[in-house]
Amino acid sequence: MWGSRVRVESRVRVEFADATITSNPLDSIGRSFPLTYGQPLLHFLAESDNVIDAHVVQELTPIRVGVVFCGRQSPGGHNVICGLHEAIKIHNPKSTLLGFVGGSEGLFAQKTLEITKDVVSAYRNQGGYDMLGRTKDQIRTNEQVNAALTTCQALKLDGLVIIGGVTSNTDAAQLAETFAEAKCQTKVIGVPVTLYGDLKNQFVEADVGFDTICKVNSQLISNICTDALSAEKYYYFIRLMGSSASHVALECALQSQPNMVILGEEVASSKLTLFDVTKRICDAVQARAEQDKYHGVILLPEGLIESIPEIHALLQEIRGLHSRGVSVDNISSLLSPWASALFEFLPPFIKKQLLLSPASDNSAQLSQIETEKLLAQLVEAEMSLRSKQGTYKGKKFNAICHFFGYQARGSLPSQFDCDYAYVLGHICYHLLAAGVNGYMATVTNLKQPVSKWCCGGAPMTAMMTVKRCLHFPGSSSIGKPSINHAAVDLKGKPYAMLMCSAEKFLMEDLYRNPGPLQFEGPGSDAKAISLCIEDLDYMGRIKKLQDSLDKVRRMVKPGCSQEVLKAALSSMASVTEILSLISIRGPTP
Amino acid sequence: MWGSRVRVESRVRVEFADATITSNPLDSIGRSFPLTYGQPLLHFLAESDNVIDAHVVQELTPIRVGVVFCGRQSPGGHNVICGLHEAIKIHNPKSTLLGFVGGSEGLFAQKTLEITKDVVSAYRNQGGYDMLGRTKDQIRTNEQVNAALTTCQALKLDGLVIIGGVTSNTDAAQLAETFAEAKCQTKVIGVPVTLYGDLKNQFVEADVGFDTICKVNSQLISNICTDALSAEKYYYFIRLMGSSASHVALECALQSQPNMVILGEEVASSKLTLFDVTKRICDAVQARAEQDKYHGVILLPEGLIESIPEIHALLQEIRGLHSRGVSVDNISSLLSPWASALFEFLPPFIKKQLLLSPASDNSAQLSQIETEKLLAQLVEAEMSLRSKQGTYKGKKFNAICHFFGYQARGSLPSQFDCDYAYVLGHICYHLLAAGVNGYMATVTNLKQPVSKWCCGGAPMTAMMTVKRCLHFPGSSSIGKPSINHAAVDLKGKPYAMLMCSAEKFLMEDLYRNPGPLQFEGPGSDAKAISLCIEDLDYMGRIKKLQDSLDKVRRMVKPGCSQEVLKAALSSMASVTEILSLISIRGPTP
Repeated sequence: MWGSRVRVESRVRVEFADATITSNPLDSIGRSFPLTYGQPLLHFLAESDNVIDAHVVQELTPIRVGVVFCGRQSPGGHNVICGLHEAIKIHNPKSTLLGFVGGSEGLFAQKTLEITKDVVSAYRNQGGYDMLGRTKDQIRTNEQVNAALTTCQALKLDGLVIIGGVTSNTDAAQLAETFAEAKCQTKVIGVPVTLYGDLKNQFVEADVGFDTICKVNSQLISNICTDALSAEKYYYFIRLMGSSASHVALECALQSQPNMVILGEEVASSKLTLFDVTKRICDAVQARAEQDKYHGVILLPEGLIESIPEIHALLQEIRGLHSRGVSVDNISSLLSPWASALFEFLPPFIKKQLLLSPASDNSAQLSQIETEKLLAQLVEAEMSLRSKQGTYKGKKFNAICHFFGYQARGSLPSQFDCDYAYVLGHICYHLLAAGVNGYMATVTNLKQPVSKWCCGGAPMTAMMTVKRCLHFPGSSSIGKPSINHAAVDLKGKPYAMLMCSAEKFLMEDLYRNPGPLQFEGPGSDAKAISLCIEDLDYMGRIKKLQDSLDKVRRMVKPGCSQEVLKAALSSMASVTEILSLISIRGPTP
Repeated sequence: MWGSRVRVESRVRVEFADATITSNPLDSIGRSFPLTYGQPLLHFLAESDNVIDAHVVQELTPIRVGVVFCGRQSPGGHNVICGLHEAIKIHNPKSTLLGFVGGSEGLFAQKTLEITKDVVSAYRNQGGYDMLGRTKDQIRTNEQVNAALTTCQALKLDGLVIIGGVTSNTDAAQLAETFAEAKCQTKVIGVPVTLYGDLKNQFVEADVGFDTICKVNSQLISNICTDALSAEKYYYFIRLMGSSASHVALECALQSQPNMVILGEEVASSKLTLFDVTKRICDAVQARAEQDKYHGVILLPEGLIESIPEIHALLQEIRGLHSRGVSVDNISSLLSPWASALFEFLPPFIKKQLLLSPASDNSAQLSQIETEKLLAQLVEAEMSLRSKQGTYKGKKFNAICHFFGYQARGSLPSQFDCDYAYVLGHICYHLLAAGVNGYMATVTNLKQPVSKWCCGGAPMTAMMTVKRCLHFPGSSSIGKPSINHAAVDLKGKPYAMLMCSAEKFLMEDLYRNPGPLQFEGPGSDAKAISLCIEDLDYMGRIKKLQDSLDKVRRMVKPGCSQEVLKAALSSMASVTEILSLISIRGPTP
């Protein structure tokens, strides 16, 4: 599968572009990362590309690289290792790739497995992380960071590749800085692999796994839509795994066109209460009943629950009590009167789930909170009430609840994820060969065919922001710079596309069935809809700008005519003036 | 998709074979079905096939046919209508196909939609039943049967095609008899379409939908297995939709090779109690923990719950009280002391689910009973107990529960189901053209490529048995002949195949991932494992026997030598003697 579309270049040029900054210059990331902040963007080009100033990397001394899976398994993760192994071996067959067994705990304990051709061929294009496994997701405490340092030094690693999402890559950035400070020779490289799709910024267009997850979920959602339309008697409430952000729900809604999706970002931005959300669904049920429709499919991202303002506040109180070591049995009695009133109103199963101790990244255990059941119950109660009051005259409301997560997470990866991960694996090697530290492997122009993809690397510090709003006074992460969990952009094109059809989707059952993941034939090269309609390619544009600036410099060299120089000066003055105006006003909404 | 592999014959020969009997001669089906019992088997052959005594059907007068979806939607159902439409129009473009809108209720109310080329092309190869919809599943009461009769006469139908499972085809058989008695010209034809796979007998090798359901479920189960192996910390309890029989669970277990599957048929035959089943799972968890494995995947058919003897008895009491009109709130207080004790022991959510009113075929609402949660809770409690007692020394047991049903039921049909349904649709026409009534369309030799499939028809009465064990004194179906719900044969090859590897599957994580349903390329022509290893083709053998008897008749005609006649007589005497011996002893186990 991979390899058929990906052309592997045995000789690669590296182009060092301008030094990076963060998008918000007020974030003083440089102070926290004195050694790894402000490094240049990297572009990789085939040697045949005609580029000035690029130098050919010909690293032929054997190298030793370690690789570790961090965080939750995401389809395609194995292919990063396949690509990395292949790139390393092409450049020197004596190079060594060590996998850490059991995630970060394997890293701390120096538990390694040498990745050989046989290992790679057993796991290529396979889902899961079972080649190496994974355990806890953190490399954060001093103890953990020191253990990682000790391992890398003991194993004489030239590079450490960390495969994971936002949290793991934030840890990777910190590790890179610490290693540089300790003058450790190991360079740290991050790879964006997370099914949540929330590691997204100017440099990273998509995460490995997201495409597969959305396709498998959309297949199932579409099947449910077909079922709803055939049985004509159930409302299906489907909760989707996807962490706090609603990227998965948005993409699945675009692919399968169910009747309704309620994004966490909408709820948070409009400050909808639990009652508002319930009412919104009830009104939809009622409007459909008036057209004699008693079925429907409603998508709910798992992050929805914590986007509802009053529940968010409740969860924060619970988290605060957890961090103060209060036992689960005592938490409810220590809540503020207001939070306590809300808590007592909720059904027992949700109470129990809200009280679960937080996940390793200190967030609520969203996968365990059955928001879909809560809303189905509230809607049922409200519809009964409306029935009694005579405002609803339709048939009885019936709901069936689902949670789609694990069954998608373990899927075979899609063609896109296979290719993307494999290319990222190759890039990891080239970043190490270029000798850089604290970089993330990047591929841009992803919506184009593989042959047009642009390979590069970006310093992880350039993706960081500082959390200004400090919810959790007890938490240890106050004000620490970290890579941003990207939320769905309510001003972005994918959301606008959904909004444009929302009313029709709600009333007209325009269900779309993309079908199961295909590996050959029609549909096998389909890409995520949001990826295709977003106008990304930031890296490509940065490069284009650099090219235009270079062009001006070449055209206006000492010796050019006075007229040419004047024209250039005047044009450039106008450009800089416009840019400074925009910078003051901030980006337009 | 279909059409590429299926060769449509414009001229078809029909061969009338011997009259059928039921497999148990003690069932006096003939008394209940005087007009439709004992009809011959039918074989359809391409006109080019060289067969003696077959007459070519050349029905060229236009006909009017009605078609109705009965029972739960099953992937491929639409293609039956596509095939039927095509066959009807090939034979006379003026013929009419009417679909009943909204299942049997549409039939009673004469709500029709003319099936045109446009309708067909919008739904071919699509899942669900939304071309026509479906509602209640019964055509059974005198009122319902009379309504159906009135409709068929009013619409001047030559044929009524009923697409459904065991219950619907039993109703179809009754309807055929009633129609014949009423001298109604409408012939009734049944088509075996049910995702449960339990309409299975000498004549019917498989049901439309079963292949798809098992493939989609196996994809999801395999994904969960991959997830389990990556996370290494959860036991997944997966309940599978499939009604009382465990065909779906068995086939999925063969396809995805999870750690454990507990078939309802095993539990019923070994009379395992709820405690036994719990203990069996706990022992497995403990054995795996001793090998440092804390993950696993366990399949539970939805029918498991009613196979557990004490729960079966409890459900019967509840059903009895329901049929006596006792309200849900009062049922628990009217249970026998023994049933009441069991009921009180169960967790509240299961109590509520066990008390739900029965489904339309008077069975428990299995899809609503969360057996997986019940068992997960019981196992968790038992493992905690063993931990306290010191007999279990492993880590804490963690379970995640799933119910896979709706998300598979609405799937696009597999290649196999597309083809099978389409061919059955064609056969329906040919049965009507042959003028027969009370037949089911059949295709045998299904495990072979489409070109070797054998088309035919069998009288539905030949598939009937009479229930001897009368559980429900209040029920109206006492002693009525009905088509048998086939259970998993614990002496059959598929079960033997599973048993042969059960220990390895349990301990060694030999998970197999068949991947998502493919429509092109490798895997797209895969068939159900149980279908391929079962040695079916009963219809083929019946035909072969008939051919040998014919051959003997032709070889031993008056004028043959005394020696030939003597040899024939002596051989035939030996055959009949062996057969009568076997018949007395009954079939060997």
